[in-house]
Amino acid sequence: MINERIAQTLERWHEFVAAPDAAILEEILAAEMQFHSPFLWKPKDRNFALTILPTAAQIFENFRYTRKMYSETSATLEFAAEIGTISLQGVDLIEFDNNGKITDFKVMIRPAKGLETLAAEIGKRLMMKSE
Amino acid sequence: MINERIAQTLERWHEFVAAPDAAILEEILAAEMQFHSPFLWKPKDRNFALTILPTAAQIFENFRYTRKMYSETSATLEFAAEIGTISLQGVDLIEFDNNGKITDFKVMIRPAKGLETLAAEIGKRLMMKSE
Repeated sequence: MINERIAQTLERWHEFVAAPDAAILEEILAAEMQFHSPFLWKPKDRNFALTILPTAAQIFENFRYTRKMYSETSATLEFAAEIGTISLQGVDLIEFDNNGKITDFKVMIRPAKGLETLAAEIGKRLMMKSE
Repeated sequence: MINERIAQTLERWHEFVAAPDAAILEEILAAEMQFHSPFLWKPKDRNFALTILPTAAQIFENFRYTRKMYSETSATLEFAAEIGTISLQGVDLIEFDNNGKITDFKVMIRPAKGLETLAAEIGKRLMMKSE
């Protein structure tokens, strides 16, 4: 259902998830992409995604995709993970352009406790980085 | 991709969303279904879903599905809505049995402010009901 270019991007995305490296994101995120975080309403840009996605990917433990659905130009990837003793689930809702690049990346997470825990961990790591 | 029974259930679900009535849910929710709320980790049962879904559906303003994806036995319905001045988005991740009944219904919502606002509104309405 998805074309070869999108399939390649998804393969690279799964490599990123297995071993977070922003260089992979540089390849697969379109220049004008929008990132919709689970925390804030306002969409963020590519630079934000390049910072936040590797940080989040490093925080999740035992991250695995549990369900995948595709349409011609989009994918819904449902995941489960832990952060310490907290279990959470989420979805990555991804849109692709004609070249298979990611133009839109939206994340939702449940439950509320998982979302809070992730926010706290991201905050800690980004503060440590900037010191 | 989805069979006729699932298509019928989805049609009834969309009728429910347009005019929330628990009688519709009685028809389409399987007896042993599990409901996964955006707030709490622990799955809830059919009775919980019969209470909470009509309440939530009445709270959302301008509710619309913005993206739909299907596999053989599941559907991902992405939505957008407002609660007063707060905008939110979410997904309904739905699984169906062979008879087209809903066996699993999972909801995730973004952003955090939308989730909080929904929790507060549901709390208010359920308290008013029990008085």
